[in-house]
Formats: sequence, structure tokens, C-alpha cells
Amino acid sequence: MNAGIVYGVGVGPGDPSLLTVRAAEILRLVDAVVAPVAAEGRRSLALEIARPYITPGCRLITPVLPMTEDSEVLTDSWRNAAELLAGEARAGGGAAFVTLGDPMLYSTWGYVAGALMSIAPEIRRETVPGVMAMAACAASAGVPLAQGREPLLIWPDEPSILQRTALSTVPNVVFMKAARHMEQLAELAEDSGRTAVAVRSVGRPGEALTHDLLSWVGQTDYFTTVLMRRPVEQEGEGR
Amino acid sequence: MNAGIVYGVGVGPGDPSLLTVRAAEILRLVDAVVAPVAAEGRRSLALEIARPYITPGCRLITPVLPMTEDSEVLTDSWRNAAELLAGEARAGGGAAFVTLGDPMLYSTWGYVAGALMSIAPEIRRETVPGVMAMAACAASAGVPLAQGREPLLIWPDEPSILQRTALSTVPNVVFMKAARHMEQLAELAEDSGRTAVAVRSVGRPGEALTHDLLSWVGQTDYFTTVLMRRPVEQEGEGR
Repeated sequence: MNAGIVYGVGVGPGDPSLLTVRAAEILRLVDAVVAPVAAEGRRSLALEIARPYITPGCRLITPVLPMTEDSEVLTDSWRNAAELLAGEARAGGGAAFVTLGDPMLYSTWGYVAGALMSIAPEIRRETVPGVMAMAACAASAGVPLAQGREPLLIWPDEPSILQRTALSTVPNVVFMKAARHMEQLAELAEDSGRTAVAVRSVGRPGEALTHDLLSWVGQTDYFTTVLMRRPVEQEGEGR
Repeated sequence: MNAGIVYGVGVGPGDPSLLTVRAAEILRLVDAVVAPVAAEGRRSLALEIARPYITPGCRLITPVLPMTEDSEVLTDSWRNAAELLAGEARAGGGAAFVTLGDPMLYSTWGYVAGALMSIAPEIRRETVPGVMAMAACAASAGVPLAQGREPLLIWPDEPSILQRTALSTVPNVVFMKAARHMEQLAELAEDSGRTAVAVRSVGRPGEALTHDLLSWVGQTDYFTTVLMRRPVEQEGEGR
């Protein structure tokens, strides 16, 4: 029924109940789940989130997709994951590549799907969208990401590279992987008259939230998100 | 069990299978579903998407939240919706306010939740995040929204207001409610050397996709999204 198909499945931000109905259905159907890990022996958070939906007979494969900037190493690792997926799909049962949040936003699925297309163009690919971390952080904090005609900027890089001109254009900014930048972000919020809230481990044990960014200087949770927002009474300025 | 609680439930972009497991569960439990409509007698797309999960005994309430810029009319309509929700919650069975996509991104839930907090602070509120339209559009188009360290800008307003400085800072832009701007967007993509793809009615009957934006000049689907992306070989420029 799923012969020759590979799914890129977003498992959402952390809470297993935030998988989509479709993602849960696919995980129950496939013969193999492929979940990348950062190094040999490391756990896959995406796999942990998906686990309640995976059937006992399903094969679990955890290829290493290292965190490196070496493009040759990366290309090889994407190709390796694509070959594993192609092998599983050809065996006839369907394979799911699981990824945190949404597969089309800062996920390796984009690269792995590209590699799969080059090595096995005959294999069907389907991407199953997922809930993004920023949506769960906003829900936890009770703060909208953006409303009405306000633009929203997602910033996954050093805050220092964010130009003032860009910042003046957008009232709302989401900073991802923000743990190492708390001091800079506190300063940026204060200088620009924005409110800020930081959320870590959203939807998982240890979830925490603070409006005092400086109190989190030194904490290292990789999945720390900062939502910055210009107060509503100033809406429309700078646009 | 759900006495005194109001849920803001994101139903995702269109396909009912893209509701989260949690959203489906809440819809099965509540005694009332509140789904805003743009005018008396109009249908609610969010309600149609949620319908497969709603039980036969559940009350369906469709208050009018008009599409207007008149802030007094808007404030009244949010307050009215909040009062309906408060009434249902006090009756003891729990009430769900359903909203397209995610409740914290360009949704009236932010306003209605604010009104609910002022008129009935004792009632618990829970926001249930949903899959955003842009995630489903990217999945359909097979194009990542952003990868690696690339920022992403969500732009729900006139493309003409987007300043060149901001555009040079971000390689990837999502234009929402883009149907009326196809000519401008085609020009913007060409001038800035970006690839563009437009998707409409994603996950619903009539879903369509085009890389030729000009071929959609004159079509009026309110839920038309344009994904613009700087080709990968030019990544890093302008940052």
C-alpha cells in the first residue's frame, strides 16, 4: 500500500499530542522510521516524540547527521540517510524520516529529500507538515506571534547580524536557538522598546518560560526560543 | 472535567488530517464549538475543517467577526465572542474557539482571548497550536521555507511596503493573502533574482500551484500564499 514511498514527517515541537492526525497515521503504517542523531549513541528527540505512535514491529534506524559546517561531510550524511530511506522504500513497506517541528523549516529533511530525488527519482516523496516550535512557544506564553498586518521575522542566526533597518521594518521577531545570546537579546529588546519572552523545552518535561532574559544567561538548552514583540500601542510605527 | 475552560484550537491549513491529535481530542470532548464567520449566513472554513472531529451533540455557534478596520466594531465583536465562550464555559462543558492555521499567527484568537481575560479572568484558557498554512504550502511545493542560518520573513501586507533594505536582509519571504498582488510579486521576484511559487486552497478541493505568478493575475482565492526564495547558490549574499 505504501510501496516505494518515503515520508518526511514533522513531529511538532515536543508534546506527542501535537503530532498531526496524518503523521500519527503514517507512523502506524510504515515498516521503518529513520531518525537522525547528532553523533553515534546519541538520542533522537524527534524519535522520542514519535515513539507513542510507532508499532512494535517497526524498524528504527538512526543515521548520524553530524552538526558540522563541513559541506562534504554534510553531503555524505544526507546521501547516506537518503540511501537508507530508498532501501526501505524499495523493500516495499514505506519509510518515514522524522524531524522536529515542521520538515520545511530549518530541518535536514530538505537536504535529505534533495539527495533522495537525485539517487532514486522513482521513489515517491511526501512531506507531512508539523507544528512549529514558535507556535507552541507563543501558545505557552499566551503572546501572539503576529496580528493583523504586522510582519514577522524568524531569525535563526546571531542576533548581532540583524540590521537595525530590518528590525525597524518588522515589529515581531522570533529568535531560534537563542540560548547563547540572552545578554544580546535582552539589550536588543530594551533598546528597541520591545517586550520579550524566552521559552525552553516547550511541551517537554522541564519546560520553562521567563520574561527576564538576563536570568537565563549561561543556560544551554539548545531549543530555546525568544519571542520579541513591539507593544500593541506602538503598532504601525516604523512601517 | 473541562468545566470553566476555553480552548483556542488551531485546525491547520485545510486538510482535516492536519489537525493535531490534541485538537481532535478537544473537539471530541467539548460541549460547544465557536467558529467565527465574516457575515451572517456565511460559512466558516475552520468549522468545515474541524467537522469530522465534532460529536453530534455538540453545540455549534457562529458569531460574526466582521472584516473591517473599524476598531469599535471589532472590539465589540471580540467581546461578543468572548461572552459566548464564557457562557459556555460556565455552563460546565468546555468550549472550543476554532481558528484556521495556528491561533497565535494572524488569528482573531489573540483578540478574543484578550477580551475573555478582561471579562472573565477566572476562566482557564488554553491555546492549542496548529499547522500553519505556509508549512502546508511548502510541503505541497516541495520547497523549504528556510534552511540553515537563513532568516525567514512573513509578510501579510502590501508587497509594495516591503523595503529593499529588509528584502536584502532576508533570502526567504512568505507573502500571505497574496491573490491581489500577483503582478507586483512577479516583478519583485524577477528584480531580486528570487524563485517564487504560489499555492492556493492548500489541502482543500481546488488546491493549485504555479511557478508563473502572472498566470494568476485576476484570481481571487483569499488563501493564496507566495513563497519566495533566493536560489541556494546565492545563499549568504546580502547578509
